[in-house]
Amino acid sequence: MDPGPDLRHRVRETTLTVAGPGGSPLGEAEVTVEQVSPALAIGNIGFDLIPLANGETVLDPAEVETFGGASVEQLEQLGELFVQVFDTATLPFYWGRFEPVRGRPDTERLRRTAQWFTDRGVRLKGHPLVWHTVTAPWLRDLPTDEVERVQRERIRRDVGDFAGLIDTWDAINEAVIMPVFDKEENGISRLCRERGRIATVRMAFEEARAANPDATLLLNDFDMSTAYECLVEGVLAAGVQVDVLGLQSHMHQGYWGEEKTHAILERFSRYGLPIHMTETTLLSGDLMPAHIEDLNDWQVEHWPSTPEGEARQADEVVRHYRTLAAHPSVQAITYWGITDDGAWLGAPAGLVRADGTPKPAFEALRDLVRRDWWLPPTTTRTDADGRLTVRAWAGDYRVSTREGAADVRVGDTAHAVVGVRAGRPGPPTGRVAG
Amino acid sequence: MDPGPDLRHRVRETTLTVAGPGGSPLGEAEVTVEQVSPALAIGNIGFDLIPLANGETVLDPAEVETFGGASVEQLEQLGELFVQVFDTATLPFYWGRFEPVRGRPDTERLRRTAQWFTDRGVRLKGHPLVWHTVTAPWLRDLPTDEVERVQRERIRRDVGDFAGLIDTWDAINEAVIMPVFDKEENGISRLCRERGRIATVRMAFEEARAANPDATLLLNDFDMSTAYECLVEGVLAAGVQVDVLGLQSHMHQGYWGEEKTHAILERFSRYGLPIHMTETTLLSGDLMPAHIEDLNDWQVEHWPSTPEGEARQADEVVRHYRTLAAHPSVQAITYWGITDDGAWLGAPAGLVRADGTPKPAFEALRDLVRRDWWLPPTTTRTDADGRLTVRAWAGDYRVSTREGAADVRVGDTAHAVVGVRAGRPGPPTGRVAG
Repeated sequence: MDPGPDLRHRVRETTLTVAGPGGSPLGEAEVTVEQVSPALAIGNIGFDLIPLANGETVLDPAEVETFGGASVEQLEQLGELFVQVFDTATLPFYWGRFEPVRGRPDTERLRRTAQWFTDRGVRLKGHPLVWHTVTAPWLRDLPTDEVERVQRERIRRDVGDFAGLIDTWDAINEAVIMPVFDKEENGISRLCRERGRIATVRMAFEEARAANPDATLLLNDFDMSTAYECLVEGVLAAGVQVDVLGLQSHMHQGYWGEEKTHAILERFSRYGLPIHMTETTLLSGDLMPAHIEDLNDWQVEHWPSTPEGEARQADEVVRHYRTLAAHPSVQAITYWGITDDGAWLGAPAGLVRADGTPKPAFEALRDLVRRDWWLPPTTTRTDADGRLTVRAWAGDYRVSTREGAADVRVGDTAHAVVGVRAGRPGPPTGRVAG
Repeated sequence: MDPGPDLRHRVRETTLTVAGPGGSPLGEAEVTVEQVSPALAIGNIGFDLIPLANGETVLDPAEVETFGGASVEQLEQLGELFVQVFDTATLPFYWGRFEPVRGRPDTERLRRTAQWFTDRGVRLKGHPLVWHTVTAPWLRDLPTDEVERVQRERIRRDVGDFAGLIDTWDAINEAVIMPVFDKEENGISRLCRERGRIATVRMAFEEARAANPDATLLLNDFDMSTAYECLVEGVLAAGVQVDVLGLQSHMHQGYWGEEKTHAILERFSRYGLPIHMTETTLLSGDLMPAHIEDLNDWQVEHWPSTPEGEARQADEVVRHYRTLAAHPSVQAITYWGITDDGAWLGAPAGLVRADGTPKPAFEALRDLVRRDWWLPPTTTRTDADGRLTVRAWAGDYRVSTREGAADVRVGDTAHAVVGVRAGRPGPPTGRVAG
């Protein structure tokens, strides 16, 4: 397998020793190796699928997320399309939607949704624990000390409730603009203004870490300017343990292009942290005018997906994902919208049309990820000592034999032992120091 | 004295007990009180006056600053105009001009200049100790560790050499853009990129503080966006002791207006630090087009001062200085250019025309500061106990009697003792806890 010089660092080699349920190596055995989860996570929002996971047949308008609310009739098919491309789903924890009435969080519905994805091998991320937009409206009436107290409690509660199901979180979203955001009075901007950005970031990370020490915690922002660099440097200098930098990329005003994308990755990889491209959109219709500063300000009646736009989107999705995968710091790429139905701002940003049919970008992304990058299910034989060398797109693989199956990580170590067993494979096993 | 409701916080009251050279109160004595230096510093660049202070009659082109290089013939008159309005001067320590050849700093010439201003009662500020522009070209050939070492040495040397003459410094200039500045390869951007902004800021403040513990040290930037806020928060969270925030305001693209100015002051006063408006310009001619991002990119052959432009500039200078003085955090306002002759970018930003005649803005600013704000020399009498209450624009005053004179601070304390003596008054004396 050779995905080209830019992507060679994504391909790794691990020699497996396949052992049977009794522990002895399975020499000269027929083995099928199949990628189940890549080291480079390919995600999308799972917002639309909450009703499906909960068996809801009618949408209660009050319960619908502000976006990502596709019609119920299409959900079954959307769910099938989702898992054809995406191995990771972002679930919505916008406080104002999750707990519109204080003390009545939407925990069970989100838990069933998380379980639905987990059952299908899809990993999860929660978004966001602290944000000034779509935050709980009832914070407005609380004094700032109380806002801080309930914000801390909310983080501990939700991160703790979902530990094991959701172990990756946007700990805080858009802290650069947070204290000076003036479009809507809210408790979180006030908290951040009075405490400072770094204290607010620290609060988010400390509470989330305490509730789930194994969690991967992100600082996430849309601001790709020096402002975000300065925030990152300040947060790190203050000793806050950030696991991953999240970079949004809502390209409603046009594709960034390879050069700008690479330059941004270079600037933000200086800190030695992994990068997640957390919110990626590319339109298949007219672009938003360049003079709009806050994307939320662009309100149009009708924003159709067009044939020319769909061809452009398919081309740009492939170019963009290749550029991102080529950068060694990128560990996850999450697209922001499976369907145009109920999409943010009504924009034709989905990979599926409002009528439920896949756009060319869907097919192009599926081919790129699952055909060009992933190792297809491959049947081969172990040698006399039960060994087998897998050189493939780094990530977790399922090794199946007549004796049973097991999952194993390819890429972390030079050698690994895979102990197959009958029944459903557990998480990757047998990692040894390479 | 009442300068209006917005400026009442600038007017303070101190009751003086005037004592003679022997120490006894001078009861029923005639006393003249005269402002010599205000708490709200009103500054300008003193770059042009270096040749005057050094008795140079011919300008060596290689020695001229990149701007602030007025013709020698006008300097005498410029010097006279300077002290009619300004009580503070910013002197140039651009490393690339100050020490173009390693080991040959321009120390003596700057020391004579500093002395020239000091002799005229003008306070001084040095600009800048660390900056990526106009930096020493010979840094480019040094490895980064060596750049850091010589940068540290340069700070210690120059701050130490001028301690007592120059006790206020822009410790670092434009750190927001510093590591990503890509117009010109230079050692300081490289240092900042490799060490990080906060480490570079810390270096500047630590070295300057060590060389002159009494110095007032500024973090200075032109970036008024959230980026500078994030930098400030990071620097403070990292424990760097910043004395003053410096805000530039080169308004070549138009006057900010009262509302924007106030909003900026509100945002940057959140950190509880005093603010110096370090680099203020308002044009008396055509404005630079709004689409220019880096002001240095606008190069025009001829950029004249016009009658309409001069009227506008005079109006805007007064409005702007009033807005700044109204904000309690502002402790200094420095204009960036005394004359159009040799002005930065060739812009008509001076308060004096290229032919040496004062513009209306010069007269307007002089009237505002010295007539409306400062207490004019006022003769009055002490009471039987030698007491006298001064209610006036906060700052240092000279108290003159037939027995001698002394300087005293009005505004810091409710009471102060002034011990007059024959000869030249020393620095303010007799402060007592209020």
